[in-house]
Amino acid sequence: MRDFLPGSVEARQSLIGKISTSYLSRGFQQIETPVVEDLDRLSSGQGGDNEKLVFKIQKRGEEFERALAEGEDLADLGLRFDLTVPLTRYYATNHSKLPRVFKAMQIGPVFRAERPQKGRYRQFIQCDIDIIGDDSLAAEAELISASLAALEAVGLEGAVIRINHRELLRANIAALGVSDSDALSAMITIDKLDKVGIEGVALELGEKFGSEVSTKAASWLGSLEQNQTPEILMPLMEAVGESAASLRYDPTLVRGMGYYTGTIFEIEHPGSSSSIGGGGRYDGMVGKWLGKDVPAVGISLGFERIADLVGESSGEGSFQVLVYQFEHLAAAIRLQSELVAAGHRVRLEQKPKNLKALLEEMTAAGATGFAILSEENANIEDLEFKPLS
Amino acid sequence: MRDFLPGSVEARQSLIGKISTSYLSRGFQQIETPVVEDLDRLSSGQGGDNEKLVFKIQKRGEEFERALAEGEDLADLGLRFDLTVPLTRYYATNHSKLPRVFKAMQIGPVFRAERPQKGRYRQFIQCDIDIIGDDSLAAEAELISASLAALEAVGLEGAVIRINHRELLRANIAALGVSDSDALSAMITIDKLDKVGIEGVALELGEKFGSEVSTKAASWLGSLEQNQTPEILMPLMEAVGESAASLRYDPTLVRGMGYYTGTIFEIEHPGSSSSIGGGGRYDGMVGKWLGKDVPAVGISLGFERIADLVGESSGEGSFQVLVYQFEHLAAAIRLQSELVAAGHRVRLEQKPKNLKALLEEMTAAGATGFAILSEENANIEDLEFKPLS
Repeated sequence: MRDFLPGSVEARQSLIGKISTSYLSRGFQQIETPVVEDLDRLSSGQGGDNEKLVFKIQKRGEEFERALAEGEDLADLGLRFDLTVPLTRYYATNHSKLPRVFKAMQIGPVFRAERPQKGRYRQFIQCDIDIIGDDSLAAEAELISASLAALEAVGLEGAVIRINHRELLRANIAALGVSDSDALSAMITIDKLDKVGIEGVALELGEKFGSEVSTKAASWLGSLEQNQTPEILMPLMEAVGESAASLRYDPTLVRGMGYYTGTIFEIEHPGSSSSIGGGGRYDGMVGKWLGKDVPAVGISLGFERIADLVGESSGEGSFQVLVYQFEHLAAAIRLQSELVAAGHRVRLEQKPKNLKALLEEMTAAGATGFAILSEENANIEDLEFKPLS
Repeated sequence: MRDFLPGSVEARQSLIGKISTSYLSRGFQQIETPVVEDLDRLSSGQGGDNEKLVFKIQKRGEEFERALAEGEDLADLGLRFDLTVPLTRYYATNHSKLPRVFKAMQIGPVFRAERPQKGRYRQFIQCDIDIIGDDSLAAEAELISASLAALEAVGLEGAVIRINHRELLRANIAALGVSDSDALSAMITIDKLDKVGIEGVALELGEKFGSEVSTKAASWLGSLEQNQTPEILMPLMEAVGESAASLRYDPTLVRGMGYYTGTIFEIEHPGSSSSIGGGGRYDGMVGKWLGKDVPAVGISLGFERIADLVGESSGEGSFQVLVYQFEHLAAAIRLQSELVAAGHRVRLEQKPKNLKALLEEMTAAGATGFAILSEENANIEDLEFKPLS
């Protein structure tokens, strides 16, 4: 987990502001859920491998003592590993107060107990939009348009969304001669295509399911260049209009989570070697908590990847420094209030012996100008800020 | 812990934006720390009673198994209970990259495993400003001015900051005949003055330290009306200028935390029966992690209390609804993009059988107007939004 230095926090806040404004402008409604959820929900089998990465919170007080003595589970809560499980729980809890078609936006930290490695963090921010209660492709079309617009809002043009459909994927896998019960295992192998190539996938499928499957897979994967968008995805391509140029049907796209039931997405950007977002339709998940099925589909943007791509904008955090001597503190505070009211951003600093060192330090922190307060210029009209560079 | 419904999230975000903008405009630098800290730091004795309320996170994998087998501590991390412990740890980690006088602002969730009760939550937001590296009262003066300005920025005029100084408090307690080693125990009793009155405090002090202390305490507490601002706080009153009218010296103000070493504050507002913020000087705490003492002072605003006081502003979240039929989805999405680009906030809705019910639902969600898309008006110029109320 990371500390964020001052300039970086402002740049990140500004990015989050742009993304949320973009989503809000398209009618998504921002919600907030606690970072802590019942452990039962975080281990319900909905979260795939992420469930193994839950930070578990110990029971407290007598409950902990009793659990320890009786060999029961010692934890009852956990930190959320994504925003989708909390969203579906939220919908189940609050649906009577929400529109029939609920268009939700959620931006917040999630936690995974992964081994630290470059570009992966144990606390990171996700930006999710989801539409619950609409089983038509209109939901997918809105999510795609909105996600591309949000990326453009932060200056990331040129994103590409790879699309597949779990039904198509299952049919393609069945055509290789893999049984339904082995389909998930085959998907896990196909998901490695980027890393191990056609040969590697064919080899592993051969080891798992025999040489016939391996041969068919090699032939299928080799013929994909000619693949055209399948009929089931055509209405989506048409609905998104100009954005269709950013969509690519990818029959090998898998997405790791077991809960997807229809369309699946993965968002790529030329500037990043790994995906910057993804999602899909998960029509069965809300029903787990609510007791009745409600269709749902969502796209999650990986904020940390986006922040890395965008970089830190330079204009954030610039301010001016008003240097004063302690005996003029009252005047400095009064002047600061007046300058702030006039739209300035002003930091007060007591005059040190080494003024040059202070000004260098302030410049490094984002200061663009300074003034030294004296009895003569203790009025806002007489105060003149000199540039720092 | 709470779910936040859509309108409420936008109102809260807007409040947070106003507070952070106000602090940033006075040169405070926003930082961010992880919500998870090493448990050692959260149980170092710095956090007073809050340390008993830590949500502890279990060790993971083999480490957990080993700890369980060997009867060691099962937890190694915890959720922060305030922003001050993380700030001082942050300063110790990052001080070489920070200005000599570090003016920090931090807004984020903290967690306490309290029994749920009205107005108390187990996850809640604090807004902290701190100045590290300045041992003069200029730091206190800036914090007070900035806090009052932030409260005014969210429409809370009329806040009063009660002030005391731990040295004065210790001297007053010593004058009652209480020994230094019993001073903390006496403070805990005096802290109940609001609840049990002068008689109650005198009674409890009598039980603890005998009738002589009790009599002196009753006399001291009875004479407080005549108390004038003591000399040690006068420079502060002068420095804050007009804001001095919002300051009250309160010789009985205690503040629960053991780490305070100098000034202590508590912020009240006529609209709230409990305090809406507080803080003080804690010159010894940074040294705990850094190995050398660095002066520090901070004020924390309790965001949940402030949000309750301000209430939900009505203007947030208003939008317009564009109703379409599925066959016109592509046109609806294109029009939405154009309307958003023109500065509108537009939600798409498929036309249901019961249009009236949809419009009522949308009005409840904040919609102020609607238009129905048809072949004739599929251009932004021809689209006319009718008001909803």
